[in-house]
Amino acid sequence: MTILETMAESAKNAAYTLGITGTRKKNAALSAIAEMLKARYPAILDANEKDLEDARASGMSASLLDRLTLTRERIDGIIEGVRQVESLPDPIGEVTKMTTRPNGLTIGKRRVPLGLIGMIYEARPNVTVDAAVLCLKSGNAVILRGGKEAIHSNSALAAAMRDALEEAGLPRDCICFVHDTSRDSAEEMMRLSDDIDVLIPRGGPGLIRTVVEKSKVPVIETGTGICHTYVDGDANLQMAAEIVYNAKCSRPSVCNAMETLLVSRAVAGEFLPMAKKFLDKKQVELRGCPTTRDILGNAVRPATREDYDTEFGDYILAVKVVSGVDEAISFINKHGTGHSEAIVTNQYFTAQKFLNQVDAAAVYVNASTRFTDGFEFGLGAEIGISTQKMHARGPMGLEELTSSKYIIYGEGQIRK
Amino acid sequence: MTILETMAESAKNAAYTLGITGTRKKNAALSAIAEMLKARYPAILDANEKDLEDARASGMSASLLDRLTLTRERIDGIIEGVRQVESLPDPIGEVTKMTTRPNGLTIGKRRVPLGLIGMIYEARPNVTVDAAVLCLKSGNAVILRGGKEAIHSNSALAAAMRDALEEAGLPRDCICFVHDTSRDSAEEMMRLSDDIDVLIPRGGPGLIRTVVEKSKVPVIETGTGICHTYVDGDANLQMAAEIVYNAKCSRPSVCNAMETLLVSRAVAGEFLPMAKKFLDKKQVELRGCPTTRDILGNAVRPATREDYDTEFGDYILAVKVVSGVDEAISFINKHGTGHSEAIVTNQYFTAQKFLNQVDAAAVYVNASTRFTDGFEFGLGAEIGISTQKMHARGPMGLEELTSSKYIIYGEGQIRK
Repeated sequence: MTILETMAESAKNAAYTLGITGTRKKNAALSAIAEMLKARYPAILDANEKDLEDARASGMSASLLDRLTLTRERIDGIIEGVRQVESLPDPIGEVTKMTTRPNGLTIGKRRVPLGLIGMIYEARPNVTVDAAVLCLKSGNAVILRGGKEAIHSNSALAAAMRDALEEAGLPRDCICFVHDTSRDSAEEMMRLSDDIDVLIPRGGPGLIRTVVEKSKVPVIETGTGICHTYVDGDANLQMAAEIVYNAKCSRPSVCNAMETLLVSRAVAGEFLPMAKKFLDKKQVELRGCPTTRDILGNAVRPATREDYDTEFGDYILAVKVVSGVDEAISFINKHGTGHSEAIVTNQYFTAQKFLNQVDAAAVYVNASTRFTDGFEFGLGAEIGISTQKMHARGPMGLEELTSSKYIIYGEGQIRK
Repeated sequence: MTILETMAESAKNAAYTLGITGTRKKNAALSAIAEMLKARYPAILDANEKDLEDARASGMSASLLDRLTLTRERIDGIIEGVRQVESLPDPIGEVTKMTTRPNGLTIGKRRVPLGLIGMIYEARPNVTVDAAVLCLKSGNAVILRGGKEAIHSNSALAAAMRDALEEAGLPRDCICFVHDTSRDSAEEMMRLSDDIDVLIPRGGPGLIRTVVEKSKVPVIETGTGICHTYVDGDANLQMAAEIVYNAKCSRPSVCNAMETLLVSRAVAGEFLPMAKKFLDKKQVELRGCPTTRDILGNAVRPATREDYDTEFGDYILAVKVVSGVDEAISFINKHGTGHSEAIVTNQYFTAQKFLNQVDAAAVYVNASTRFTDGFEFGLGAEIGISTQKMHARGPMGLEELTSSKYIIYGEGQIRK
């Protein structure tokens, strides 16, 4: 057996133990993790410094360096996250339906853990803890396989959590960490369908596409977001400009940020210059359709076909003038990734049509797409945002990390 | 574009229409399908006769020939199934949660169709109608790709349903039928992840394994059942023998039939001869562990290692004597396929332990595993039995054919 096969078998055994562990013990383990992380500040910061040195030597960009950096305050933030998960209700064991059938069988549907979850992620070390504690609270063992840039930080964080598990009397292998950050280890995880129940990739579109296409383990696809905002012909244009600015500029690198602005022909002449004034504050680069360029001038770069299928993740915005809500809906259903889509309108029936017909995880009327997030939706935490339709769609909290089991109480019933 | 690509694109468009079609219109289409099938008895029976001729010429076994055969009565049974689906509540549009957040956003989780479902199945023509009408009621378009043995029957059934859709004012392509029954068409479906949202394979283990391993479209794995019954040391042995007989012999070819009997050492000497008397009525071939053979004699064939990992689907039963419930649970979690597992016991804590620790879609105390079925569980109908943990587990009815969409009503909210 390979190292990873041995790890997966051992993690699966830990998952069986964890799956029947009560809430009190799981919360005690979460508490131990919080305290252990606090006790390990120096070791974690030292490890992080090694990653940062390597990153600087390799010429990593300032924004990526910032994502990789841990400070005492950031570790406190991570610990605060652990405490929050500790305080959330335990989803496991809830019987969501239970009935007695005419033949006397009592049949209940009980919420159970998924089992063993594989996380494949990229540079941010906080994911190591965030993901592990959500899995723990929902009774799942986890195999963490982060990116090579954060290997020392992740390894220190994982070691702290595993020591805390042991202290709390749970198997260390409830949280496993893959030290091999080569492509091989990720690909091997995608083949371990006997032990790993679900793979969740978190990272850039390249990583996610690879996992979705290659994995034999069921995958929950997360976080690819080509999000649109459609400004209707009957809209509060001031509100629209503020929503557009927020959706594009409040944090352009995240998946719920807007990538394409659609504007009804009826208000394009008035609205586009208004919106541009807002977007100019952040020097957003516009890429427009011919009508947009007629209105805003040829300084606006023409949009190519690919621009409407690109997640820029940056201060770049594709713009298109459309005839109305119907064209907007069909454009979104064609070019969107099913993440978050918004309409700004004063018209009741237009709003309802957009809500009904746009095919996405989250559809907004008169609000910014930036709200698609487990905390903002009230789930208490989030392990990622699913853009697929199977199993879970939208922000995934603890309940989305569970499966179900039918439990049946009989008195000797046999089937006729 | 290939024929199948064109079909999938057209079916996906039909899915958008169907997804926003109300219950009344969907029910009218189901009614039209029922009537059309009735009107087409002769055409359907003629087509079936062609399949039967080919099957007889190819030397198909009597039991497979029986599965392939349609009669007026069987078509009536299929039509009755359509009427039942018509009478079930429509899952689409239900808002399962809705709250107003502190910032005033009203966020609801609405049940929506999955979109376009691909069904890849084998010889039984009734699946063509059963699957299509469940998809229709739950607002999903479907691409049906059945086995070559039933091509004429399936084609006649699909044509009738498509004509009925048109009569009812819905797009014919809500139900698409693939005439090419070669392996190529199945493999092409597994690649159409842009249009097909979910693939559901129904058939033998070979088919299911191929789809699970090769598909880029998310798959719901169904119906592989290596089911166990464990007879505890403290059990009503008469009840146990009846349950064992029912689980093995009432319909050995189906996935919820028992394949392996586990017996506590404490009662093996008394129970195994009792059970054998029952099983002898159907000449069940036993394959036993050494202790079983000590008790029942060397006429019982020794069980090989593979026997404990085989879905016999026939009057064959693997038997193993175990030390008690703990060994039974770990044996089941190792050799089972996560389908249906049963314990026969009088002991409260043993029963609870088995329910808690066995990792399967349905876990029974004192009842036959044969009850795992959408109708028996009160779902009204069934498109298959999921043995995976993601999305749906156990019998899948209409709700299991749905996804969700967050709908958000705002008043201009932007994210800080």
